[in-house]
Amino acid sequence: MSSAARPDPAETPEEQRFLSTEEAAALERELLEDYRFGRQQLVELCGHASAVAVTKVFPLPTLSRKQRTVLVVCGPEQNGAVGLVCARHLRVFEYEPTIFYPTRSLDLLHRDLTTQCEKMDIPFLSYLPTEVQLINDAYGLVVDAVLGPGVQPGEIGGPCTRALATLKLLSIPLVSLDIPSGMPGWDAETGGGDSEDGLRPDVLVSLAAPKRCAGRFSGRHHFVAGRFVPDDVRRKFALRLPGYTGTDCVAAL
Amino acid sequence: MSSAARPDPAETPEEQRFLSTEEAAALERELLEDYRFGRQQLVELCGHASAVAVTKVFPLPTLSRKQRTVLVVCGPEQNGAVGLVCARHLRVFEYEPTIFYPTRSLDLLHRDLTTQCEKMDIPFLSYLPTEVQLINDAYGLVVDAVLGPGVQPGEIGGPCTRALATLKLLSIPLVSLDIPSGMPGWDAETGGGDSEDGLRPDVLVSLAAPKRCAGRFSGRHHFVAGRFVPDDVRRKFALRLPGYTGTDCVAAL
Repeated sequence: MSSAARPDPAETPEEQRFLSTEEAAALERELLEDYRFGRQQLVELCGHASAVAVTKVFPLPTLSRKQRTVLVVCGPEQNGAVGLVCARHLRVFEYEPTIFYPTRSLDLLHRDLTTQCEKMDIPFLSYLPTEVQLINDAYGLVVDAVLGPGVQPGEIGGPCTRALATLKLLSIPLVSLDIPSGMPGWDAETGGGDSEDGLRPDVLVSLAAPKRCAGRFSGRHHFVAGRFVPDDVRRKFALRLPGYTGTDCVAAL
Repeated sequence: MSSAARPDPAETPEEQRFLSTEEAAALERELLEDYRFGRQQLVELCGHASAVAVTKVFPLPTLSRKQRTVLVVCGPEQNGAVGLVCARHLRVFEYEPTIFYPTRSLDLLHRDLTTQCEKMDIPFLSYLPTEVQLINDAYGLVVDAVLGPGVQPGEIGGPCTRALATLKLLSIPLVSLDIPSGMPGWDAETGGGDSEDGLRPDVLVSLAAPKRCAGRFSGRHHFVAGRFVPDDVRRKFALRLPGYTGTDCVAAL
C-alpha cells in the first residue's frame, strides 16, 4: 500500500488493537455479565498481573534496598482497587510498598482490600508531601492507580487531583495501571499522549486490553495484563495481542 | 536433646509444619474474617496456583497432544470450586481440560465459576466411564478436586463416591488438590497415607499450607500453593515452608 493510500490512522489494524472508553466498558460488561466473572476476581487478577509487570522491569535482585520501596497511589474507583491488590502482591514479592489512598471508597471490596493491606503492615500515608524531592528521595518508584478510563480528575476530588499534580513532577520511575491517570491529554478516547499536561509514565500496564491512549504511549515498557480474557472475547473486540509465554500473566507489547 | 527426651512425633517441629483439619479451618477463618479475604479471591488464587503446579510437573512443550488433555474431577464443596478455577487456567495455559462435576453446588460462586468454564467451551462430562481404560486412553492426566479436608466421602453423594473409586484404579498421573480426596487412610487428621484404600496421587498441591496427611505423601511432587498467606499467619500457625522464588505462586517441598 502506497503512503498516499494510507487510511485514517484511527482505522488501521494497528489502531484497532486499542479500545475506546466505550469498548473497554463493553468488554468489562461482557466479562462480568456474560462470563459471570466477579469484580473481586477481576481486580485480583489485574492487581496480581500489575505487580508481576513491576517485577519484570524492576527485578528485585537488581535493586538496592531504597529502590525496593514503591509508593502506590490509589484513587477511589476500580483502578484504585487494582492498586491495593498490586501493593499486596508487591509486598508478597518482597518489595516495600507504601500506599497513598486519600479518598476511600465505601465499597465493600475496597474496604476488604484495604484491610488486607493494613493487616499485612503495609504503611498508608496520611498525606502526600507537596515537596517533590521528598518523594524522589524516599521511594524507588511510584505506581499510579489513581484513575481508570472514563473517569475525569474533576470527579475524584481534591486530594487525588493534587496527587496527580505532584506525580507529574517526579523524577523517579512511574508505572501507570491501565491508563496514565486523568490528565486531559491522556483521555482514553482521544489518545493525545503528547500533551504536556499529562503524566508521562515509564511503564504502562494495560488491564484486560490496551485503551486507545496507549497507542501514543512513549515510555519504555508497555505490558498487557489480560491473559484471563477468553479467546472469544478477544476475537469479538478484534484484539490482536502478542502471545503470553508459559504461565506468564503479562506480555510485553 | 537426647533421643530419650524426644517429644511425641506430633510435637516435633517437622510435624508442626502440617496442619490438622481444625488448624486448617482456623487458618482459613483467619484469612476470611480477620484479613477480610473474599472466598472468590482465595479460590481464584488457589486454583491459579494449582494450574501453575500442573505446568511445572507436566510442561506443555514436553507433552504430546493427547498428554495435554486433563480430566478435572470436581466435588460440590470448596475443593471443587478450586478445581473449576484450575481447569479455566489450564485452558488459558493451552492445555485441554475436561470437567466432571457431577454434584453441582447451588452456591453462587460455584455457579459463576461453572459459567466461566462453560462459556470458554471447556467440555463437561455428563458421566464418568466406569471402564477405567477409557479414561486412561482419553486423558493425559487427572486432577482430583473432589474433597477437601474435613469432608468425608459419605457426605458428598453417590456420583462423587463412585468417581473416587474409579480414580483409584487409573494408571495415568493423578494430581490431588489440597489432600488426596476422601479415602479413610487420607483423612487430613490422621495422616494415614499408607492405606491401600486411598488415592495415591503422583502430585499433591497443598493449598495455603500442607495438611497433616501430606506428611505421608509418597508421590513424586509435592507443592504448596500458599504464597498469599501473610507472614503473621504463617508465624501464628508455625508454618516453616520453603521460600517462593521470584513471582512463583507455588513452591516445591
